[in-house]
Amino acid sequence: MRATIMHAPGDVRVEDRDKPAIQQPTDAVIKVVAACVCGSDLWPYRGADVLHEPRAMGHEYVGIVDDVGADVKNMQPGQFVVGSFFASDNTCGICRSGYQTGCVHREGVGGAQAEYLRVPLADGTLVATPEMPDAGKVPSLLAASDVLGTGWFAAKAAEVGPGKTVAVVGDGAVGLLGILAAKQMGAERIIAMSRHADRQALAREFGATDVVEERGDAGVQKIKELTEGLGAHSVIEAVGTQESMMQAIQATRAGGHVGFVGVSHDVALPGRELFSSLVHLHGGPAPVREYLPELINLILAGDINPGKVFDLELPLDQAPDAYKAMDERRAIKVLLRP
Amino acid sequence: MRATIMHAPGDVRVEDRDKPAIQQPTDAVIKVVAACVCGSDLWPYRGADVLHEPRAMGHEYVGIVDDVGADVKNMQPGQFVVGSFFASDNTCGICRSGYQTGCVHREGVGGAQAEYLRVPLADGTLVATPEMPDAGKVPSLLAASDVLGTGWFAAKAAEVGPGKTVAVVGDGAVGLLGILAAKQMGAERIIAMSRHADRQALAREFGATDVVEERGDAGVQKIKELTEGLGAHSVIEAVGTQESMMQAIQATRAGGHVGFVGVSHDVALPGRELFSSLVHLHGGPAPVREYLPELINLILAGDINPGKVFDLELPLDQAPDAYKAMDERRAIKVLLRP
Repeated sequence: MRATIMHAPGDVRVEDRDKPAIQQPTDAVIKVVAACVCGSDLWPYRGADVLHEPRAMGHEYVGIVDDVGADVKNMQPGQFVVGSFFASDNTCGICRSGYQTGCVHREGVGGAQAEYLRVPLADGTLVATPEMPDAGKVPSLLAASDVLGTGWFAAKAAEVGPGKTVAVVGDGAVGLLGILAAKQMGAERIIAMSRHADRQALAREFGATDVVEERGDAGVQKIKELTEGLGAHSVIEAVGTQESMMQAIQATRAGGHVGFVGVSHDVALPGRELFSSLVHLHGGPAPVREYLPELINLILAGDINPGKVFDLELPLDQAPDAYKAMDERRAIKVLLRP
Repeated sequence: MRATIMHAPGDVRVEDRDKPAIQQPTDAVIKVVAACVCGSDLWPYRGADVLHEPRAMGHEYVGIVDDVGADVKNMQPGQFVVGSFFASDNTCGICRSGYQTGCVHREGVGGAQAEYLRVPLADGTLVATPEMPDAGKVPSLLAASDVLGTGWFAAKAAEVGPGKTVAVVGDGAVGLLGILAAKQMGAERIIAMSRHADRQALAREFGATDVVEERGDAGVQKIKELTEGLGAHSVIEAVGTQESMMQAIQATRAGGHVGFVGVSHDVALPGRELFSSLVHLHGGPAPVREYLPELINLILAGDINPGKVFDLELPLDQAPDAYKAMDERRAIKVLLRP
């Protein structure tokens, strides 16, 4: 089968690989219907993460179950499934508390930018749709697999709710879907921090009521001006740098909540400033599995259309172009079809 | 009047100073009945905080109202009051959300280790007891002014509650009263981290069910062993160093809560580790004012006896000895009587 392999920064190739097989009785193998390139895939692509050996890329996926291990009970070949980037048993104490990405048996899922994918702990990781979805729903279901689930978790972590003002740091797919999540959760005011016209437009379409183009201290100042000097109740951080984290913390009022989901890169939070800020800080790898049933229902009911973050669609063979387009910010997010 | 002044590290003197007067119509001046030395007073005493000029010490106090400004409505001379270390208006949006230490008009209160003390924003800062309390209640009411209120906030920030396992990092007065708070809030299991026999005994008296003597990685390992490998649901951090913060974060299970109230010193939290931990982090200067009415009621009803943290009582004139006893860890906390 064809699979996307990163050999070095900037060097992504589509190559022939063995089709994955069931290894554990709890595994499933799925035929990938759609996958995509993640913002986090750009870290090794840009050389910001070290790549020790060629890596099979992709951890966002929807597909059709091709084969299941002997112990898999909740799904069968032929069903359409959406999965998460961490496999989880969905039964341990941590999973039951809603933190499947902290599952005591968690395993990373990798190699989804390919024709077939092996998913460990299939019963606890995949969610099947009630029936085969319309083709038009596929991009949104794919978004649920990571970027929507991550934006959703960020909004939950930031305690978004009715009557609240929410600021969103980061205008990538996760930040934009954090806006959609905040809107769904009833936020009164949603401030998108973005300086790109196309992303501002999508932010407004997803529910942003205000746009702030300034960054850093100037961005914080602007958020304060919009909130009677107090700061936002809830801030979603979807970048992962020192600047974005400090911007998020400083833009939050005392007693407010920061939900951070940008994968941290060289971040060191100064204790004294965090102490003085009186904010709540929560985040990490989003427990997408926890939200998948709800998100799939919202998508199939037509209540949300997160698939709009895919502004470019390419066949799997053009995966290298997909990386290039996202690296050069010509695309927000690229969908790949095997 | 006599007042305690720190001139330099290790150099604390009781000197004559002018009795404070009303400066703003919202001020009160109180005759101090009891004050005490705070763990945070030891930072400048030990030279860990820079002292640019002589400082009037003390921010924990109970007393009798001596004089009030023209705008003070909620109290009158002769009433017994308990106050907080930050003055707050208790009416702004931040105060109303329960974060009086983030009040838009907040001011530090200082110089309580003295005969008289000026308290700004008296209506929003002080709470009067229904009647003159018994002398035996004074130490507990004094504890409410800071260490109890701070331990209480830490337990709230750590989301302590029924069925939960709580670990407490730090066996000073705040950590010990964090244990008392956790017990009051219904924690199922409370693990005190302490290697001092006297403090372990008080910890058990306040409600600790287990004691762990190990620190750092070994301490974390021990907490995991006691919690089926998962870590505590809630961890109270009451020290403020890099080691104690990391110990608290690492001892908390994914999805659990760290409440940190140790004043941060040279702490820099590694973003990637915080991200992976999936913990909630909340803390800072405790909004004691928020909890005072409830804490005063519990004390006057005899439900809690936080005054037990005072294991040494000295006349104000011996304030230098009080600092010495705490610095040398001969006393947990010293009460001073003017």
